[in-house]
Amino acid sequence: MGTMSGAEDPLVRALAEIVGREHVLTDPELTAGYERDWTGRFRGRARLVVRPGSTEETAAVVRRCAEAGAAIVPQGGNTGLVGGSVPRGGEVVLSLGRMAEVGSVDETAAQVTAGAGATIAAIQDAARAVGLDYAVDLASRGSATVGGTIATNAGGMYVGRWGATRAQVVGIEAVLADGSVIARMGGLLKDNTGYDLASLLCGSEGTLGVVTRARLRLVPAMPRRAVAVLGLGDLDEAAALGARLRRELESVLALEAFFPDGAELVRRHLRVPLPFERHPGCYLLVECGGREDPAPDLAAALGQYAAPEWVVIGTTPAERSRLWRLREGHPEAIAAEGIPQKLDVTVPMGRLGSFAREVRSRLTARVPGARPILFGHIGDGNIHVNVLGADPNDERVAETVFTLAAELEGSISAEHGIGVAKVRWLRLTRSEADIAAMRAIKRALDPAGILNPGVLFPGE
Amino acid sequence: MGTMSGAEDPLVRALAEIVGREHVLTDPELTAGYERDWTGRFRGRARLVVRPGSTEETAAVVRRCAEAGAAIVPQGGNTGLVGGSVPRGGEVVLSLGRMAEVGSVDETAAQVTAGAGATIAAIQDAARAVGLDYAVDLASRGSATVGGTIATNAGGMYVGRWGATRAQVVGIEAVLADGSVIARMGGLLKDNTGYDLASLLCGSEGTLGVVTRARLRLVPAMPRRAVAVLGLGDLDEAAALGARLRRELESVLALEAFFPDGAELVRRHLRVPLPFERHPGCYLLVECGGREDPAPDLAAALGQYAAPEWVVIGTTPAERSRLWRLREGHPEAIAAEGIPQKLDVTVPMGRLGSFAREVRSRLTARVPGARPILFGHIGDGNIHVNVLGADPNDERVAETVFTLAAELEGSISAEHGIGVAKVRWLRLTRSEADIAAMRAIKRALDPAGILNPGVLFPGE
Repeated sequence: MGTMSGAEDPLVRALAEIVGREHVLTDPELTAGYERDWTGRFRGRARLVVRPGSTEETAAVVRRCAEAGAAIVPQGGNTGLVGGSVPRGGEVVLSLGRMAEVGSVDETAAQVTAGAGATIAAIQDAARAVGLDYAVDLASRGSATVGGTIATNAGGMYVGRWGATRAQVVGIEAVLADGSVIARMGGLLKDNTGYDLASLLCGSEGTLGVVTRARLRLVPAMPRRAVAVLGLGDLDEAAALGARLRRELESVLALEAFFPDGAELVRRHLRVPLPFERHPGCYLLVECGGREDPAPDLAAALGQYAAPEWVVIGTTPAERSRLWRLREGHPEAIAAEGIPQKLDVTVPMGRLGSFAREVRSRLTARVPGARPILFGHIGDGNIHVNVLGADPNDERVAETVFTLAAELEGSISAEHGIGVAKVRWLRLTRSEADIAAMRAIKRALDPAGILNPGVLFPGE
Repeated sequence: MGTMSGAEDPLVRALAEIVGREHVLTDPELTAGYERDWTGRFRGRARLVVRPGSTEETAAVVRRCAEAGAAIVPQGGNTGLVGGSVPRGGEVVLSLGRMAEVGSVDETAAQVTAGAGATIAAIQDAARAVGLDYAVDLASRGSATVGGTIATNAGGMYVGRWGATRAQVVGIEAVLADGSVIARMGGLLKDNTGYDLASLLCGSEGTLGVVTRARLRLVPAMPRRAVAVLGLGDLDEAAALGARLRRELESVLALEAFFPDGAELVRRHLRVPLPFERHPGCYLLVECGGREDPAPDLAAALGQYAAPEWVVIGTTPAERSRLWRLREGHPEAIAAEGIPQKLDVTVPMGRLGSFAREVRSRLTARVPGARPILFGHIGDGNIHVNVLGADPNDERVAETVFTLAAELEGSISAEHGIGVAKVRWLRLTRSEADIAAMRAIKRALDPAGILNPGVLFPGE
C-alpha cells in the first residue's frame, strides 16, 4: 500500500470521480503540508490526499477506500501533538478542510451547526457576534477545527467551568467505516433513545468514524473580567481555595497554578514583574467573568481567605494580561532556558499536592540534572510537567511522570490524546478490561481496521 | 429458561455460593416486588433474584450467569416507566440494592463516590451537608438509584442548567457481560486516553454492562431562590425569552411552560389560584437560585422584557411553592380529570412553538375527542404531552405525537428511555445506520445477548 509511482494509482481516479480531480492531491509539493504535523515530530508519506466538499462525498470516499482496503487518516487542522492526524506511511489522508461552513447561530437554543473543517476561531466569531461564546478555547484556535477538536475531545482553559469538547457537542454527523452516515443534529439536550454515539466519537481520535458536521452548544459571553494572583503555601492550599471559590462565586472561569521556579524563569526571560516582594510556595491565578464586573465579589471572597499582602487583582485589560502573562509565559520562558520534555497529565484534584511534591523528588532522584517546572489548570486537575536538564530522548522522564500519575489514579493524557506517541503508555492508566472493551468496539465499528490504524491501540 | 419448580434450580446454588443463600430469592412473596414496576404496567416472573453485596460478587454473578446462558435484568430502584428493569419472563433479576454506600464528599474536587444502589436522595443529603448539591433531581429521588439513573441517563428539572446524568458521571465502575470489571474512578475532568466508556454506559439501559459504582460531580448549593411566572403570547415567545434570560442571568435554574388548559385544570381540581386576571397564551415559569438572593436581578431583567401586569415573582418559600404548584400540579390535576396517555418528547428549542400548535391540531383531527394538555421543561426542549379523552389503548395518539417529534428532528424519549415500551417506535428517530452502529456495539460487548434482552433493540 506504499505510494505509487509511474502508473496512476487507480484509487486516485476512483476518488477523483467523487470529489473532482483537483481535490485529490498526489503532487508532493501539495501533499507535504498534510504529511507532517506542525511540531515536525511526526511525518509520513500519504498515498494521496483527498478533500471532499460534502458529507455525501465523504461517505462515498470512505466507501471507496473501504472497498480498496485503503487505510484512512482523517485530518482537521493538523494541530495535534501526538501524531494522530498524519500518515504513518501509505494511508489516504482525508482532509475535512473544505467543509468549513458555519451556520447562523440559533439564539433560542444557543447552538450553532458547523462543518468539521470550521476553525474554533470561526465558531467563536459567530458566537460572539450575538453575545454568546464557544466554551472551548485553545492557543491553536485559528487552525484547530471542529472535527479535530471533537476527535480529540479538546479541553483548554475553561474545562473546569464548561467541560471539554464532549460537553459542547449536542449533535453529530459522522461517516462510519462502511460509509454509512450517522446523524443526530437536532441539538437535543434530552434524548434517551439508545447509545450516545456522539460521546463515543468524541475523543476516539478518528478510529471509529469521520466527523463531518457538529451541532455545538454555545455559552453566555462573559464580557467583564477580573484576574487575581495569590501567593499561597503549597498546591494543596491552592486547590482547596480554588474549590471554595468555585463554590462561592458563580463567576470563576479559570484556576491556574504555578511555582517560584517557573515564575522566576518568566521574570528573567520575559521581564514580567513579579506580583509579590518574595516568592510564595505556590501561585494561584483566578479568572472571573460575567456580564457585570466580577471584581468586587472576587475581592470580597479573597478578603476572607487570603492575607491582603499576598493578593493582587487586575481589572483593566493591561493589568489582567500582565497577570495572565505570569502563567501563560511559562512555555516561552522555559523554552528560553532550554529544550524541555513536555508532559501533560491529570490527577484527582485532592492529590495535586502529593503529585507535585512526589514528581519533583522522583525525577531529580532518577534523572540526574532534571529540573521539573510545573504549571497547569488546577480547576480540572491538569498539570503540565516540563522537564529541563534531561536528554530529550531519555524515556525515564515520561516513565517517571506517567507512572506516578497512574499510581494516583490519574491520566497520562489530560488533553492531547494517545495518538501514536503515547500508545506504549496506554496500559499504565487503562486496564486490560478497559482496553479489551475499547478494542471490541473498534472491531465492531471498523472490522477491517481502515480508520486511523496505529493510533490509540497497542499492537494494532 | 422459565421458573423452575420441584428440584432446585442449579443456578440458585451456584449464585448462593457467591452471595450467600439469603441473597438469592426464589420465594414468590419475596420476589414479587422485583417482578413488576411501580406503575404496575410491566411485570414478568424472574428465574431468581440475586442481590450481590460488592463489585466482586456482582462480577462473579454475571460470570456465572454467562456460563449458564442465563439472561440478566439489572435492577436499581425500579422506578422506570418503560419496563426496562423488570423481567419479561425467566430472567435473573440482579438487584444492586445492597450496594448503597455513599463515600465522604471530596470537597476539593466537589465529587462523591457511591454504590449503584445508593438513592439520589442519599447523594443529595451527603452533598447538602457540605454546601454542595447533586444536579439531578427527580420526583422519585427517594427510590431511584445511582445505577438506575446512570443506566437511563436520568434528567429532571435542571438539565438545561447542569446537564443530565451523563454530565454528572466523572467516573464509573461496571461489570461487563463477560464478568470483567471496567473502572475509572479517579474523577478526572480531563482524560483523553481512548473511548469514554462511562458516557457509553450512561443511557444504555443495562444492555452493555451492570454499573456497580460511580464517581459523581457535585454542584454548588443554591440556597437563595426566586420564582417568577409570566404571561406570554405563545410558546415561541416563552422559549425566546427563556433563552435571553439564561444568557443574561447566571442564576437561571429552571424554565418551565404550561398553557391555559392545564392551568385551568390545576385551578379547578387543586384549587390553586391563578396569577393573572385572565389567561395569557402561554405561561412561563422561571426559577433562579444562588448564594445571594437572585430576586432583584430577576426582577430587573423581567422589567426589560415583560409587561408588569403579566409578571409575578415569589421569593418566600410559600410564594415560591404556590407558583411551582401551578406547573407541578399538572399531573395530579390531569389525573383528576381523567386517565391520560402520557408522552414525553423533546424537540429542538426553536421548534417548540411549531410542535405545540401542530400536535394539538393533528391530535384533535386524528383522534376524535382527544384533549392534549402540554407542559414541560422548555429550558431543554422537553415537552410532556398528556392526552385526555382518548382510549388508553389507542395507538394513534403515540404515533401522532412521536411522528411529529421525529419530523421536527426531536426525540421520542426525552427522559424515560426506550425500555421495552418504546422499542417499536425507535426507528422513528434513530436511523438504520444509528441502530446498526448500536447493535454492533451491543454484539461486541455482549455477544451472547445476556444483558437485558428485549430492551432497546427492535427484534431482539
